[in-house]
Amino acid sequence: MKNSIGREIPDEVLVGRAVYQGEFAKNEELETIGRRVKPVKPEDTKLLTTIEEAINKVGLKDGMTISFHHHFREGDYILNMVIDTISKLGIKGLTLASSSLGSVHAPIIEHIKNGVITKITTSGLRGKLAEEISRGLMQEPVVIRSHGGRARAIEAGDIKIDVAFLGAPSSDEYGNASGSRGKANCGSLGYAKVDAKYADKVVIITDCLVDFPNMPASIEQRDVDYVVKVDEIGNPSGIASGATRFTKNPKELLIAEYASKAIIESGYLKDGFSFQTGTGGSTLAVSRFLRNEMIKQNIKASFSLGGITKPMVEMHEEGLIKNIFDVQGFDLSAVDSISKNTMHHEIDASFYANPHNKGCIANNLDVVVLSALEIDTDFNVNVLTGSDGVLRGASGGHCDTAASAKLTMIVGPLIRGRIPTVVDSVNTVITPGDSIDLLVTELGMAINPKRTDLIEQFKNSSIPVYTIEELKNKAESIVGTPDKIHYEKEVVAIVEYRDGTVIDVVRKLK
Amino acid sequence: MKNSIGREIPDEVLVGRAVYQGEFAKNEELETIGRRVKPVKPEDTKLLTTIEEAINKVGLKDGMTISFHHHFREGDYILNMVIDTISKLGIKGLTLASSSLGSVHAPIIEHIKNGVITKITTSGLRGKLAEEISRGLMQEPVVIRSHGGRARAIEAGDIKIDVAFLGAPSSDEYGNASGSRGKANCGSLGYAKVDAKYADKVVIITDCLVDFPNMPASIEQRDVDYVVKVDEIGNPSGIASGATRFTKNPKELLIAEYASKAIIESGYLKDGFSFQTGTGGSTLAVSRFLRNEMIKQNIKASFSLGGITKPMVEMHEEGLIKNIFDVQGFDLSAVDSISKNTMHHEIDASFYANPHNKGCIANNLDVVVLSALEIDTDFNVNVLTGSDGVLRGASGGHCDTAASAKLTMIVGPLIRGRIPTVVDSVNTVITPGDSIDLLVTELGMAINPKRTDLIEQFKNSSIPVYTIEELKNKAESIVGTPDKIHYEKEVVAIVEYRDGTVIDVVRKLK
Repeated sequence: MKNSIGREIPDEVLVGRAVYQGEFAKNEELETIGRRVKPVKPEDTKLLTTIEEAINKVGLKDGMTISFHHHFREGDYILNMVIDTISKLGIKGLTLASSSLGSVHAPIIEHIKNGVITKITTSGLRGKLAEEISRGLMQEPVVIRSHGGRARAIEAGDIKIDVAFLGAPSSDEYGNASGSRGKANCGSLGYAKVDAKYADKVVIITDCLVDFPNMPASIEQRDVDYVVKVDEIGNPSGIASGATRFTKNPKELLIAEYASKAIIESGYLKDGFSFQTGTGGSTLAVSRFLRNEMIKQNIKASFSLGGITKPMVEMHEEGLIKNIFDVQGFDLSAVDSISKNTMHHEIDASFYANPHNKGCIANNLDVVVLSALEIDTDFNVNVLTGSDGVLRGASGGHCDTAASAKLTMIVGPLIRGRIPTVVDSVNTVITPGDSIDLLVTELGMAINPKRTDLIEQFKNSSIPVYTIEELKNKAESIVGTPDKIHYEKEVVAIVEYRDGTVIDVVRKLK
Repeated sequence: MKNSIGREIPDEVLVGRAVYQGEFAKNEELETIGRRVKPVKPEDTKLLTTIEEAINKVGLKDGMTISFHHHFREGDYILNMVIDTISKLGIKGLTLASSSLGSVHAPIIEHIKNGVITKITTSGLRGKLAEEISRGLMQEPVVIRSHGGRARAIEAGDIKIDVAFLGAPSSDEYGNASGSRGKANCGSLGYAKVDAKYADKVVIITDCLVDFPNMPASIEQRDVDYVVKVDEIGNPSGIASGATRFTKNPKELLIAEYASKAIIESGYLKDGFSFQTGTGGSTLAVSRFLRNEMIKQNIKASFSLGGITKPMVEMHEEGLIKNIFDVQGFDLSAVDSISKNTMHHEIDASFYANPHNKGCIANNLDVVVLSALEIDTDFNVNVLTGSDGVLRGASGGHCDTAASAKLTMIVGPLIRGRIPTVVDSVNTVITPGDSIDLLVTELGMAINPKRTDLIEQFKNSSIPVYTIEELKNKAESIVGTPDKIHYEKEVVAIVEYRDGTVIDVVRKLK
């Protein structure tokens, strides 16, 4: 069956799922779920000394769903540690519902092979685990969900978490946990906060026990069953590294300059505007260009959103951005700021981007600047699979913010290595073309034809304007058309749109 | 049927309810509920201009349950305004689930008579409404719930709120609402926060629209369907008055002195201890005595809890109390502090005192000082009905904190007017004697015999120690035994214990 953007979705992945029909097509009233709670009495204690004890106490059984967060990124020790222990206890057939997975999680390949993990849902996959899954490691396809889509799925019961194992840089003995005040801080615990509210059982794992009450808490005692103290939750240098440096790459700087000019000329840059930018070289540089213009025009942003980086923190501290909404901190500046700046707010993934609550903050975004591995002439964007068809990215907040913001801009080079970014049809659609307004490259920009208002607005733009076909042709004239990737029929990943419908699938590599 | 403290509970009130069996007898795993949500898309707006429009938009129908909070106390305009409008629209048979009701709500007597309101659940009742209900105004008994019990009932679905009408001192157009930054501020919106999370439809009513985003928010946009701007939400002088003055009444001062000595001698006053005190003349004075002792002994409290008053704020600001957990501010000092002190935390009623989550903060209380209208020789406490049998109080957090704290102390005069406080058997049990450790009066104190440890601890106390029977006899020797109140058989109020069981009923007055 074809979905509304023409992607062929095989029937076998449509059990309990509909095909994608449009950004806000699924909009009916719905029911959120509750959870099972074992009341905790005044004399009860929660502190345990081993992960094994916690697994036993929560009653983890074959076939259950366990969850983790990815705030420790490539420095995470928790997921491997817990799954190793589960494996030793002989528990099998689990669904792993991690907010994302990285290269550091390659050891779970073994636990997929031995039947401990049989299903996975995640925002992204990288490294050896991703490579093996692309080549057919799992019998059940992985379900790829955006950050907003995962929050939606948890609240709707599409993901029913039996036990959440949540690493926390600090916690008290009663489960008040924080991403700050520990040895290996990650700042916001935005993804974990959703699990803590909806999982039947919640286990906090920390390497830094602090005095009660550990306030302010990202996760509260009322939601926590047990606390486990371990030696180390992660490698601090993998969790939050120093602030990313600004690019000196002239191509990236040119893209950033065009992108910021596009924002300025779009009419959306005005007092009280709001924006989100990513972490790539170009997108970080956009913030710097914007800052100069904001000072020049005496403009203050009402908020910035997303994964938070040093440029946003600096602009907040100099009064250019009034509020920061932080679902995830990307560097030590963000980690430091959230623990001291009162208008730097920790938000959870539902508040961030869930399309099915009563209004996520992404709905209020004026401008979002996003990256792409590929974009096609329908403006569909791929941020998940590489030019070789292998899984190597993450859905993240891409389709969430793209659908919600008033101006959604993709920035990227026309060509990466010998690979064109603009193509006829992307390998995998994460974000539908309807959500994308502008593509900005080092050559100039392309405007989505459906945005006739923007075509008018940019009539006298200082940036060269092309059609997206022209940009594709330019790319192809330099590097030729990319070789076709050869897939088997078997589906290795289902890509859910944020509303739970299927926007695309990833097939097994030949 | 008799419950475990010997109160006769008629069968007709036990439909869907069990009798009280002990403080923590009901402790099995349970399920919380979800709710219906109509997703809000980026282009949707929420701002309405009249309450009537909101009632129509949320689809309020006969037989539904509507909720309100009581943070505006005797200054509240919201409840009467909304119910008047509902009445005009001809909607009938509603359940009113207010966190509490005061004298200001007397106008709803008419709406009970005309069938708009047919059921009520509340923490308390006062004034003419209470008087009329005591005399049989309603066909269905009112359900009295504690603050923790109400949060429990909402989370368990015992109260299923269809529409919450929540007054907010400030809000932006998208529903981020706060108890601060308005014209009539109440500080914490702790009771309203629970309704905002569990009601199917949430309407914010404000008289002060502020710029987006109104941060930090007590109630978040993701939980709000509509925002209504009205001229006035309440009378500021009724909402939060200036700090209550310290008593100069020598009897109250003596009680406070004994009470603080009892805390000091109990062994619970040590570095890192926690406490809650109420708002009566004696209890406020206890804080002052404690403060002096804490300075003398160089003791700092980890937190204070509850309805927050000026003495707590002062001790927080001078570093004697590290954290304030505030479900409700009682005076302008509390209102001012919560908007500026970062360790003065706004908490909701579930975090405060719900016995059926994974650990409310009341569980961590060392000492709570509470008042009583009556206390009997089994240490059962009445804070709901007067000596004439008329409803004139509130359950509040009384039974919640009494059950949870390590040391629960009742303070009060032996005699009020010509009425003894210590009696053979209280009119109405709100808090069971098992939860009470000490009674402190101007004559001295009585220790609950089950606390043999405390009897030992107070062996050489500087405070005169009596049995509670001795205190009762002393009271009776002065004013005689009180006249018996004459009731009909008909039940006018069911008193739920915090766990949802029936601890007592209030019958219609003859």
